Amino acid sequence: MRKLFTLMALAISLTALGQQNMKRVSTPPASPDIQDDGTVTFRYYNPKAVSVVVEGGCINGGRAQMEEVAPGAFEYVTPAPVSPQMYYYNYVVDGRRVIDDLNPWVIRDVNYLFSVLLVKGGLSDDFVVKDVPHGTVSKVWYHSDKAGFDRRMTVYTPAGYETSKKKYPVVYILHGMGGDEEAWVTQGRACQILDNLIADGRCKPAIAVFTNGNISVDAAPGESARGYDKPNYNLPQTMEGSFEESFPEVVKFIDGRYRTIAKQSSRAICGLSMGGYHTLYISANNPKMFGYVGLFSAAITPRSDSPVYQDIDAKLVAQFAAKPYYFIGIGKDDFLYQDNVSHRQRLDTAGHPYEYMETSGDHNWINWKIYLHHFLQKLF
Amino acid sequence: MRKLFTLMALAISLTALGQQNMKRVSTPPASPDIQDDGTVTFRYYNPKAVSVVVEGGCINGGRAQMEEVAPGAFEYVTPAPVSPQMYYYNYVVDGRRVIDDLNPWVIRDVNYLFSVLLVKGGLSDDFVVKDVPHGTVSKVWYHSDKAGFDRRMTVYTPAGYETSKKKYPVVYILHGMGGDEEAWVTQGRACQILDNLIADGRCKPAIAVFTNGNISVDAAPGESARGYDKPNYNLPQTMEGSFEESFPEVVKFIDGRYRTIAKQSSRAICGLSMGGYHTLYISANNPKMFGYVGLFSAAITPRSDSPVYQDIDAKLVAQFAAKPYYFIGIGKDDFLYQDNVSHRQRLDTAGHPYEYMETSGDHNWINWKIYLHHFLQKLF
Repeated sequence: MRKLFTLMALAISLTALGQQNMKRVSTPPASPDIQDDGTVTFRYYNPKAVSVVVEGGCINGGRAQMEEVAPGAFEYVTPAPVSPQMYYYNYVVDGRRVIDDLNPWVIRDVNYLFSVLLVKGGLSDDFVVKDVPHGTVSKVWYHSDKAGFDRRMTVYTPAGYETSKKKYPVVYILHGMGGDEEAWVTQGRACQILDNLIADGRCKPAIAVFTNGNISVDAAPGESARGYDKPNYNLPQTMEGSFEESFPEVVKFIDGRYRTIAKQSSRAICGLSMGGYHTLYISANNPKMFGYVGLFSAAITPRSDSPVYQDIDAKLVAQFAAKPYYFIGIGKDDFLYQDNVSHRQRLDTAGHPYEYMETSGDHNWINWKIYLHHFLQKLF
Repeated sequence: MRKLFTLMALAISLTALGQQNMKRVSTPPASPDIQDDGTVTFRYYNPKAVSVVVEGGCINGGRAQMEEVAPGAFEYVTPAPVSPQMYYYNYVVDGRRVIDDLNPWVIRDVNYLFSVLLVKGGLSDDFVVKDVPHGTVSKVWYHSDKAGFDRRMTVYTPAGYETSKKKYPVVYILHGMGGDEEAWVTQGRACQILDNLIADGRCKPAIAVFTNGNISVDAAPGESARGYDKPNYNLPQTMEGSFEESFPEVVKFIDGRYRTIAKQSSRAICGLSMGGYHTLYISANNPKMFGYVGLFSAAITPRSDSPVYQDIDAKLVAQFAAKPYYFIGIGKDDFLYQDNVSHRQRLDTAGHPYEYMETSGDHNWINWKIYLHHFLQKLF
């Protein structure tokens, strides 16, 4: 264990020197450390720590106590192989939440950082960059008349877009309340999923558009005019009708800027949680806009008395007259499960057909990647 | 102080719930907290901590002890306003380096995370997103014959590129040994600098290309086929001639894919540290390729006996025959200072003109942003 401490000290002294120090050093202990047998070892070093817990979707029961295998050196080895997926985790050191500082891969969710573990295999093989043709991922600004300022979106153009003269269908992919135009790209691995599905023909080549559903802001935190200001822990201005009303200007911008097949049968929309709510009402209010609609763990119940949310039964009749592919995915333990039961009853009563997928688990990115992966293979 | 603890507990219990929890909570204490008078308060909360130090370029002398203002609540207030810049910092808690976990803005440098503080004003006003037309920033893959696989670069196209039919000049901007195709965009704020300089005419509208100078890899960590594998603490394969030899294929790709003015007087190259080294040898080996050359804290001394590094005096004669604008920037305390003295002597002896900027400080992103900001205003 002395060796571990020496390496740690070396790593720490290196980082203390600041930027661009790339002197060759011995490799510090790894964490998380995926073994050949599929088990994962988590490590944490802190001579002052008394109790260290690892928390995450990759831990049975959600959390586990780590063992002090040498003074200040904590470890937890999963008792069984960890299933392929992309997981978030963090440590709790004497009651205090921290990231795993032996792991440089972090993801920001809302205003919190999580450490990332990606276990390859199964569905997860479509989350990694493989040796297939890659699409281009662009941060693009457009002017929003509704907001009154320029706003940012992420646009995926499939491999071959720049060199072909073809027109492409478009799928709009919307984030949840904690997200922004980067969420599906970083947390959802959507561009890797698109690359890999398109590469072997499981999904047709398509443009994907990731909007920012919080109409009062221009772009993701740190990338907006707010700069690196204090985090905003309040709810964003959304789910009061403005973003839904503004959506046709997004579609108009994309059809004007890119070589799209600008018709209903080549246009899809889907979203998670708040983005599922947006998807439900945007598609119902524009019944001739989308041929494919996906609600992933969607919020359903109207949050304001905006006209956007009125007369939904009549709007659904108009929407379903065009025979869209309509997908609903929800986890058994999702806090929005009952809302989705109600929405399905509404559709059933009216005789509107849809595809339904019920998964285990609750309101999380593991499910949302499963739903997107399925939905994309149904398109166009 | 009881209130602070209650808020912290609330924030922590929220994060423990994982993703997409956006219940409205009171705002936790902010850190870093920029006051109206320009001083900055750093905060850290940990009941088990004994000694907490803040380290960073924004602290006089580089580090300062934080005061325990209430049990477990540590604070440091800068004695004077902090100059406008973008800074990295971290804490050292009882000898252990951690990020500021009240601050969600982090930047990865090599394999380490740093917390970020951006103080607006002065030069720093060109680092923030402002209400000006924004360029598009794209992650683009190209095939490298030299490497034998697809590789990723970042491409900035200026506002108006997509809607105009004009051709544009191109500036290639190269990273240092610890970086990748994301470094200048995230750590260097290069796209904000370009947006802001172009917006008021201080820089001509141009395409900017950010390559990945480590020829043995395809893309930045986490975005490559290596996925979220264990961090690599070894030196990358670079500075042995391969990347420099491969550069004409990058230029060919860009001239083929984008509407460029494909001639020497409309093509620039610059880079920091290892990227300055690449810039020196790429431009000298291709004397008719670049009309503008910028060496920022450049490594100078050849690291291998590749033909790329041979006959440099004769190559410089050929290069300077085309009368390029040649810029050298270096900090007084940079460990590469003497190498740059030697390079200037070589140019002086041969009568090759150049512009020289000497700044305070050493080998860091504060200087590199100053040099880029200056260099861009000299182009085209």
